[in-house]
Amino acid sequence: MSARILIVDDLFPNVKLLETKLTMEYFDVLAAMNGPDALAICAKGLCDLVLLDVMMPGMDGFEVCRRLKNDPNTAHLPVVMVTALDQPSDRLRGLDAGADDFLTKPIDDIALFARVRSLVRLKAVTDELRCRALASRDFGMGDPLALATAETGLNASLLVVEDRASAADRLSSALGQHYAVTVEADPHKALVLATDGAFDLALVSLDLQDFDGLRLCSQLRSLDRTRAMPVVMIAEPHDKARVVRGLDFGVHDYLMRPVDRNELVARVRTQVRRRRFSDTLRGAVQASMELAIMDGLTGLHNRRYLDSHLGALFEEAVQRGRPVAALMLDIDRFKAINDTWGHEAGDEVLRAFADRIRTHTRGIDIVSRYGGEEVVIILPDAEATEAHAIAERIRERVEALPFAIQRDTLKIAVTVSIGVSWRRPEDTSPGDMLKRADRALYRAKHAGRNRVEAAAA
Amino acid sequence: MSARILIVDDLFPNVKLLETKLTMEYFDVLAAMNGPDALAICAKGLCDLVLLDVMMPGMDGFEVCRRLKNDPNTAHLPVVMVTALDQPSDRLRGLDAGADDFLTKPIDDIALFARVRSLVRLKAVTDELRCRALASRDFGMGDPLALATAETGLNASLLVVEDRASAADRLSSALGQHYAVTVEADPHKALVLATDGAFDLALVSLDLQDFDGLRLCSQLRSLDRTRAMPVVMIAEPHDKARVVRGLDFGVHDYLMRPVDRNELVARVRTQVRRRRFSDTLRGAVQASMELAIMDGLTGLHNRRYLDSHLGALFEEAVQRGRPVAALMLDIDRFKAINDTWGHEAGDEVLRAFADRIRTHTRGIDIVSRYGGEEVVIILPDAEATEAHAIAERIRERVEALPFAIQRDTLKIAVTVSIGVSWRRPEDTSPGDMLKRADRALYRAKHAGRNRVEAAAA
Ligand SMILES: [Mg+2]
Ligand SMILES: [Mg+2]
Repeated sequence: MSARILIVDDLFPNVKLLETKLTMEYFDVLAAMNGPDALAICAKGLCDLVLLDVMMPGMDGFEVCRRLKNDPNTAHLPVVMVTALDQPSDRLRGLDAGADDFLTKPIDDIALFARVRSLVRLKAVTDELRCRALASRDFGMGDPLALATAETGLNASLLVVEDRASAADRLSSALGQHYAVTVEADPHKALVLATDGAFDLALVSLDLQDFDGLRLCSQLRSLDRTRAMPVVMIAEPHDKARVVRGLDFGVHDYLMRPVDRNELVARVRTQVRRRRFSDTLRGAVQASMELAIMDGLTGLHNRRYLDSHLGALFEEAVQRGRPVAALMLDIDRFKAINDTWGHEAGDEVLRAFADRIRTHTRGIDIVSRYGGEEVVIILPDAEATEAHAIAERIRERVEALPFAIQRDTLKIAVTVSIGVSWRRPEDTSPGDMLKRADRALYRAKHAGRNRVEAAAA
Repeated sequence: MSARILIVDDLFPNVKLLETKLTMEYFDVLAAMNGPDALAICAKGLCDLVLLDVMMPGMDGFEVCRRLKNDPNTAHLPVVMVTALDQPSDRLRGLDAGADDFLTKPIDDIALFARVRSLVRLKAVTDELRCRALASRDFGMGDPLALATAETGLNASLLVVEDRASAADRLSSALGQHYAVTVEADPHKALVLATDGAFDLALVSLDLQDFDGLRLCSQLRSLDRTRAMPVVMIAEPHDKARVVRGLDFGVHDYLMRPVDRNELVARVRTQVRRRRFSDTLRGAVQASMELAIMDGLTGLHNRRYLDSHLGALFEEAVQRGRPVAALMLDIDRFKAINDTWGHEAGDEVLRAFADRIRTHTRGIDIVSRYGGEEVVIILPDAEATEAHAIAERIRERVEALPFAIQRDTLKIAVTVSIGVSWRRPEDTSPGDMLKRADRALYRAKHAGRNRVEAAAA
């Protein structure tokens, strides 16, 4: 994918060199010659990836990286640190600061392009998600980005695919302090495990005896059930070409043997954090979509949900010749509760009422707040007598125990009237059934309240 | 990206040949030897892209393609048709059936891999969006996939970047029947136009005089404001290498000169359709998220929205030392309306009441349904006297004209009582301000209704 790359380096020739290379590959290039300028460009959302020099006067690259990764607005930007020294300690400092990878000067072009392309592609996939999650924040759903940025990347389940016991032991002991590690020597079994099990990340050796580890990586990256799981390759240094190929088809990261224990933990952390970042954003979008079908006060479904699902449910009952019943519930003299104890007490009663109903309905029932103090319950597969029994049990349970509200300081006796109806062969829509429940409810009210009335035969 | 490729061909050697090539490139390969088997595999969601033979006994490739593209569950799958004959008429039939591209036997490996990779990457970006949109369907928001699939891809605005007048004329005349075409010879101006203007697609010549057209394509693909716009390259046949490069960094499609008029229209249609498909899905997700903060009956914001935004708004007013006011409105004797005319009439009155309020509030005001017949309006930057005047105007406008409901057959005279309050220096939260508005409303009710009362000084 084409992308805007920000080059950050205090030396002009370094900037020029990288700029020329990247421009030749049709990337859009921006440059900053110090940390503060780089942060400003990133904050404005003008780039997709940062190539960041470590040694700069004033704010060094580690600090720039840390700030980018701790700011919810920029934490999603991939950062590749560029260092003159291939010191594991430098790599570690960078990874600890949240860097996604490291390149050593003089920069190897193949490694550079493979890494930049791979990071840009992975970013493109989550960008859409991030946009939706941002919208959910604007809608006042809390701040999923801040939550996602705070993720530590620790305490995850890892699958290690390695058929040499000594190598597997070294990996397990390095990771064991922070992670639950499962080792599998057989790549076929590993694929099954990954598909079934709940692993947060897979580490795959490219040096398995009778199997191409890269093939397993590719399968993990293409199967629906494992696609979201980060994959990290472990390879011999002479195997750079296969590593580049893996990055090209979507493997997230790699480590060269001999594996540095601290770098291993740091890279695993980065990937686990990234995966959870996406999961958090996805969850935020999902949650704000779910809110659209919930009643904010009671946590029951709202009328919008009932309206949009009842038609299909009813139609299915007609097709399969199955019964379906409806209960319409209305709290008796609810206005008096509001007038006597105030709106807030009334709201609390509604919530407690909803809770009590929930304990007497099944998962397949639709329980929805229909109006102010009215609730409609749809009971799929319930015959008239069964529906009547359920209604009677709810009525009795509401009457039996006063509602304790305002932290148990106030007990309010509540009763409920319920109208029961069920699908009849001549019904053309669920509205017919609901109308009969409404009329039955009306009769229950006029017959003195606190009672269940069935629709006229 | 790694992906699952479905090869559909009635001849086993053809399947084997493609399978070997793709497996070597680390794709996961599935095979089907006839149309119905292919459709079944796609319906189960087992593949990411289809390589589809045209000539098969029984159901031919065109028909398989048509069925895939007309089914909302499979319309998002890229389809590349594979044909023995490089006949424009075959290409056209395939494109009309909805195919995303064509490959001619014997298959050129570079073209094959470039196309497959490019399509798989574009799909990966929209997959996340599709998942969210599917969820919105489960939540009963209608079916965005069906809507998106029905898109025709016609009537769009196209930007043609071509500096030879004769070539530009030919493109314009071919596209003019279905599209609004803007020609721009200068690639720099074209980039500005694309960033400002509302183009649905850009066609870019790779043979501009003093500029690399591929550079423009890359810029269009990487800038935030043009990234969603499909880009189609137009190139000389000897320029295949640059075309492959363009596909690699995200250009959507290409045409070789001399450009076949019908193929041009067909490919543009496909890309416009794809873009609108994404837009529709994005809109569906956005809409279902917005529903979470709307009151279903009146279309006003709901209490959830008020609760989540009022804090920040109030805090900002405190910081900047600005005024903010609150109106609490309650329809007088609303229960009597419900009891006399029924719930449905009551609902209609609420909707009409909301409409009337809307015409007297500004975009920056928060207008939210607070409870049954209660509405809260927050007026940023409004002083006490201004808030009082607005309240009085609303009260007067409600009283002035009876509400015409039930298709104008019923006119109901409605009045409203309003409590007005504003932020005071000693307020620690917006709840203090709302409480005063509530008490003022209470006094308005007790003083005879149909009046505005201000919070006590
Ligand atoms: Mg330096
Ligand atoms: Mg054939």
